[in-house]
Amino acid sequence: MPDVPGADGVRVSLKDDGTMPTGSFKARGMAVAVSRARELGARALFAPTAGNAGIALSAYSARAGLAARVYLPEIGTESVQSACRAYGAGVVPVRGTIRDAGNAGRAAEAGSGAFEMSTLREPYRLEGKKTMGYEILEQLGPEVPDAIIYPTGGGTGLVGMYKAFRELRALGLTDARPRFYAVQAEGCAPVVRALRDGAPRCEPWSEPATLAPGLLVPAPFASERILEAVRESRGGGVAVSDRSIVEAMAVLATRYGISASPEGAAPLAAL
Amino acid sequence: MPDVPGADGVRVSLKDDGTMPTGSFKARGMAVAVSRARELGARALFAPTAGNAGIALSAYSARAGLAARVYLPEIGTESVQSACRAYGAGVVPVRGTIRDAGNAGRAAEAGSGAFEMSTLREPYRLEGKKTMGYEILEQLGPEVPDAIIYPTGGGTGLVGMYKAFRELRALGLTDARPRFYAVQAEGCAPVVRALRDGAPRCEPWSEPATLAPGLLVPAPFASERILEAVRESRGGGVAVSDRSIVEAMAVLATRYGISASPEGAAPLAAL
Repeated sequence: MPDVPGADGVRVSLKDDGTMPTGSFKARGMAVAVSRARELGARALFAPTAGNAGIALSAYSARAGLAARVYLPEIGTESVQSACRAYGAGVVPVRGTIRDAGNAGRAAEAGSGAFEMSTLREPYRLEGKKTMGYEILEQLGPEVPDAIIYPTGGGTGLVGMYKAFRELRALGLTDARPRFYAVQAEGCAPVVRALRDGAPRCEPWSEPATLAPGLLVPAPFASERILEAVRESRGGGVAVSDRSIVEAMAVLATRYGISASPEGAAPLAAL
Repeated sequence: MPDVPGADGVRVSLKDDGTMPTGSFKARGMAVAVSRARELGARALFAPTAGNAGIALSAYSARAGLAARVYLPEIGTESVQSACRAYGAGVVPVRGTIRDAGNAGRAAEAGSGAFEMSTLREPYRLEGKKTMGYEILEQLGPEVPDAIIYPTGGGTGLVGMYKAFRELRALGLTDARPRFYAVQAEGCAPVVRALRDGAPRCEPWSEPATLAPGLLVPAPFASERILEAVRESRGGGVAVSDRSIVEAMAVLATRYGISASPEGAAPLAAL
C-alpha cells in the first residue's frame, strides 16, 4: 500500500489489487465463490460480465475443473472474450449491455444445471471481497484509516469491507469504524444521487456514460446494502468527471509507477 | 506455487511471477537496481529492452522520481512502448534487434550522465533476482526442490538463484543443492549447445527464431555464469519446440487457470 501526498496532516494509502491473480480484485470473490460452488457439487458455472469478473471466473473454474460460460456485451469486450477463451471458458457475446447479457444468460441456462455466479446472486463472492477489509487491518493495523474511499459500480467490495469491519469489531479484533465513501462517475452516479436525496434505494440512472466500464452500473443490485454501509458509517458519496479520472491515472503512472484502471484512479480524483 | 502432475513420485511446483508489480519477474531486479541507483545519486537511467524489463524500469523510475529512457526494436514492441510512455519514460524505437537497440542506446547516452541498467552491466538486478531463490526456500522449505527448471534467455534469474542457494548454504540456512536446468527454444539454444559441446562460453546462435521473445537471446552476456551454475549443480540443458511451448501454455490456461507467457510455459514443455 504505497502512500501518496494528501492535504496537510492527511495520510493517503493506495490499495493496489492489480497484482492479484488475473490482474484485478475480482479474484478475491471468485476464488471463494468457485471453491465453494465446487464443494457444493456444482459442475458448471455462468455469469454475465463486461470484464475482469469473467476472466477471474474463467481462470478459477479452469483450476477447479468446472465448466464456465460467460455472457458479455458483444461490443467492446473483445480482449475479455479472448482471455476467457484462453482459459477454456465458453464465451457468448450478446447484443446490448451487461444487463442484456445477464437476461440472455439466465434464459439460455435455465434448466441446464449451471449455477449463476453474478455478484450477490450467490453469497460467497461477498465473503471473498471481505478479505480487502482483513488486509487493510493486517497491513495498517492497529491504525486503521478513518475513511475508505471506494470506486463503486456494483458495490460488492464496499459492502464486503463494511461487513468485514463489523465482524472484526464483533470478534474484538479492532474497534475501528472507518467511514465509507462511494466514488462514482458523474455520468453514472445512482448511489451519490440516492445519498443526496435520502432515498432508500437507487433508481436506475438514465443514459449512463463514463469511460470506466466498472462504474457503468446504472442500478446496483445491492443498492440498499451500499447505502446502509455509507450511511451507518457516516461516510458519503462523491461523483467525479471522466477528465479528472484520466488526470489521476496519469499522476499514478508517472509519479508512482502504478498502472491504474479508470476505476482504480477514481478515488484519487475524488480527493 | 501450484502443483502440477509430474511423473510417478515426482512433485512439480510452478513458481508464478505473473502477479509481481508490472506483471513479470523483471520487477524483482529492477526494484533493487533502481532503488540502489537512486541511493548512489543517479538522476537518469536507460536500458535496451524488448519487453518486460523496460516496463519495470519505467515504473520503478517513476516511483523513484528518476528519468528513464528505453531503447527498443521498433517492430513488435508497440504495446511495450505505450506502457513505458504511460509511466512517463522516454521511448526510442530503433531499427533492428535488441542488440542494435543496446548499441544505439549506449551511443546516444554517452556523456549524458544517464546510467545503463542492462542486465549484468550493473550488479543489483542480479541481487534482486536472487529473491526467487529466497522465496523458494521460504515457500517450500525445509524441503527444497531437487531441480529448478528455468527458461533461459539472458539467464540472470538462473545465475541469481544459484548465487542465492550458495549464499544460503554459506549462512547455514539450508544445505539444499538444487540442480539447475536451462530450458531454451530449439530455434535459439546457445546454452544447451555449449553444454552439449563442453564449451567454456556460448557462441552466438545464428538465425535465432522462436515465438518466445524472452528466449530470443543469441549470445547471453552472462554465459560463463550460466554454464557454471548448470555444471557445478550437475544440472543440464533442454531445448523445446515452439509447438510444445504452445501446448504447455494451453494446458496451464485451461487446466490450472494460469495465463503463462511462452517463456513461462517452456519449463513445462521440457518435462
